[in-house]
Amino acid sequence: MLEARLVQGSLMKKVMEAIKDLIDIGNFEFSSTGFMLTDMDPNRFSVMEFFLHSAGFDHYHCDRNLSFAMNLHNLAKILNCAADDDILTIQAQGDGLAADSITFTLESPNQDKVSKFEMKVKKIDSQQFGIPRTKYQAIFRMPSSEFARICMDLSNIADTVVISVTKEAVKFSARGDIRAATIACMPNTDVDKVEEATLIAVDEPVGLTFALKYMSLFTKATPLADQVTISLSSDQPAVVEYKMAEMGHIRFYLAPKIEEMNTEPLGENEDEMETEPQAESNPPVDTKAKIELWELTSFD
Amino acid sequence: MLEARLVQGSLMKKVMEAIKDLIDIGNFEFSSTGFMLTDMDPNRFSVMEFFLHSAGFDHYHCDRNLSFAMNLHNLAKILNCAADDDILTIQAQGDGLAADSITFTLESPNQDKVSKFEMKVKKIDSQQFGIPRTKYQAIFRMPSSEFARICMDLSNIADTVVISVTKEAVKFSARGDIRAATIACMPNTDVDKVEEATLIAVDEPVGLTFALKYMSLFTKATPLADQVTISLSSDQPAVVEYKMAEMGHIRFYLAPKIEEMNTEPLGENEDEMETEPQAESNPPVDTKAKIELWELTSFD
Amino acid sequence: MLEARLVQGSLMKKVMEAIKDLIDIGNFEFSSTGFMLTDMDPNRFSVMEFFLHSAGFDHYHCDRNLSFAMNLHNLAKILNCAADDDILTIQAQGDGLAADSITFTLESPNQDKVSKFEMKVKKIDSQQFGIPRTKYQAIFRMPSSEFARICMDLSNIADTVVISVTKEAVKFSARGDIRAATIACMPNTDVDKVEEATLIAVDEPVGLTFALKYMSLFTKATPLADQVTISLSSDQPAVVEYKMAEMGHIRFYLAPKIEEMNTEPLGENEDEMETEPQAESNPPVDTKAKIELWELTSFD
Repeated sequence: MLEARLVQGSLMKKVMEAIKDLIDIGNFEFSSTGFMLTDMDPNRFSVMEFFLHSAGFDHYHCDRNLSFAMNLHNLAKILNCAADDDILTIQAQGDGLAADSITFTLESPNQDKVSKFEMKVKKIDSQQFGIPRTKYQAIFRMPSSEFARICMDLSNIADTVVISVTKEAVKFSARGDIRAATIACMPNTDVDKVEEATLIAVDEPVGLTFALKYMSLFTKATPLADQVTISLSSDQPAVVEYKMAEMGHIRFYLAPKIEEMNTEPLGENEDEMETEPQAESNPPVDTKAKIELWELTSFD
Repeated sequence: MLEARLVQGSLMKKVMEAIKDLIDIGNFEFSSTGFMLTDMDPNRFSVMEFFLHSAGFDHYHCDRNLSFAMNLHNLAKILNCAADDDILTIQAQGDGLAADSITFTLESPNQDKVSKFEMKVKKIDSQQFGIPRTKYQAIFRMPSSEFARICMDLSNIADTVVISVTKEAVKFSARGDIRAATIACMPNTDVDKVEEATLIAVDEPVGLTFALKYMSLFTKATPLADQVTISLSSDQPAVVEYKMAEMGHIRFYLAPKIEEMNTEPLGENEDEMETEPQAESNPPVDTKAKIELWELTSFD
Repeated sequence: MLEARLVQGSLMKKVMEAIKDLIDIGNFEFSSTGFMLTDMDPNRFSVMEFFLHSAGFDHYHCDRNLSFAMNLHNLAKILNCAADDDILTIQAQGDGLAADSITFTLESPNQDKVSKFEMKVKKIDSQQFGIPRTKYQAIFRMPSSEFARICMDLSNIADTVVISVTKEAVKFSARGDIRAATIACMPNTDVDKVEEATLIAVDEPVGLTFALKYMSLFTKATPLADQVTISLSSDQPAVVEYKMAEMGHIRFYLAPKIEEMNTEPLGENEDEMETEPQAESNPPVDTKAKIELWELTSFD
């Protein structure tokens, strides 16, 4: 039996908005530690992991692990019915493995409106991607809205971004046929609000190329957290993490593109952006790879 | 001769916005009691009736009944030119039956801008749908924005809504292929603002099925009134009424669908929503039917 | 060498937004007096001229005239990256004639974000349209937002507008198949804010017909200035000018249509708006014509 109650029901609505364009069918897992929603994009280039601690719920009871797949677009439509102050309760009756429908209840704070939604789900075996934690060469944290803005701006110029991190700055570079851009963000902790800070921790300088299409999709999570933390190593998928205070997190993993960085002068490579990016240049995320997320203690 | 002056000219603009997607050509009738605009949707499933008392105008002079048909999209374009504080004057010269164009004048409050629009109209014989008043089994009143929200939310789930009214609650239910929803609104008069109240008056409990497409179109009138009143009887068209204080009202009539309420468990009826709703399941509004609107004295 | 620094970098962004739908490739000219951007629309019906005084820049150094053509859509995408308080620096290295790329740098006020954009340009010979200044029969100045509103409203009714100016009023008239409109704006200097004033100066009353499509495109410049000044003569292109305080201006030139004003009663000319406007009825702007802009001293 599962019963999970979230007074701030609109949080789940925001999460669905953030990920529904990235994946179709999500793997939902409820266990005693909390709620985990994972999926790999259909092209297997990126992995998404959303986790909400059981302690993040206002009431949480799950006496047996429950795993099912659900269409996220359908779920987003249900959660869109939540008013900003609605209370959300997720319920599954009976044995978790036997449940084939989940009930979502939205209650207005003064109880004069109660909406119940029942949704058929597909039972699945528990399926953890099991991305282990590793140490990264460089990590930076910056305002999530700023990162979203940079991805949007560079998407106008090219399909890929080179992210280079040194102690002095994080540089985002894009190079198209007739335009090129470099945006440099310098460390800055002398800010009015802590969420406007930019922090950089470098073990070894790194420069990696990523598909802007995926980075831009990740930034849909911007409303969930004021800051984004990005961890980079040349032989690992990058981690783009939006941390929701004490409640949980949403993490995206994306493999760097293997192509060489283009250093030709602007205009010499007219056809550069015309050719379709090679599938092999953006290797599928190896979910078996041994990764160990570097402890971000220097920031916290 | 007709001359009708409305200081709050933007009211007419809001009305046109509310109804222009529902009907193409409206029947306009000016008489000594006021201005009535009626039409039946092309499929004859719903009837719309907008009435503005002559006393609702700041100046009103109509010495002979004037009836004409006008394209509402063209009229909406003219009224869209009205600024929020513009004064609207509607004029027809000469004998009402001879008039073949109507003049709309918009004046800015300080008179430094005057816009005159002339529009050709088609004379028609007075044509009242003559929907008489009847007694209804159940009536409820709720915030119009809340009703609009419910119609929008349920439209994501199914094509039809079952509205059930008991003394305890109004329930809106929709049942799709893989999702089902029930939204219950309880009576509530313990509210900060009177327009947030929900009232229910039941002579006999009732449960009727309606096409959500029409209900959703009706909710375009939401900006005209804080509350909506819905009157239901099993053998009559429902009345969805937006009352504009002392000035007038806009009422929509919609026949219930005849189909049986679906009580099968979720998922047993996979093709349910795929089949095109049968024309006969939503009978045309019988404008000859004897209806007598129950006095809503219990609410006022 | 060119280096031009504009603390209010968002100004250039607004200018590009204003003109990018009107022209594709603009002619950019930097000289010691300032920056001029000109172009003729592809159909040669209108000419656009944007000028920014060198004194309007916070720093301006141009030791040799520099002329090049640039795709405005590409430039608009770069400038869209500017935050509202970003500082913009435009640079070209070496001899102006040799430059084949221009660098745009955007700096955040606290210097923690620096974005550099490099863009290839096409060198061209200096090419002034050389529209000379002339005396006009009638000039009026009005709130730019009001003018934009009128163009939008009348575009719903017809393809052309007749602008008639007398000492008493500026009248904008449009006549479609089933609707006709006349909007009269009276002189008004008794206003709370100077930018709400309407001024009219008439040497000789004038009535001219213009394509609303172009007038509407010009109104994209509305965010650049609170007021618009329109100068009319029956044998000259009209001038629609948005003046940006001390910094510069954007001017549009549009030839009047030659067709006779339609004075037939409404409805007698059913096919009037159906026929495609004849190309010869809107003569290309004669850039050789001797025009001398009447000094607007009566307004300033």
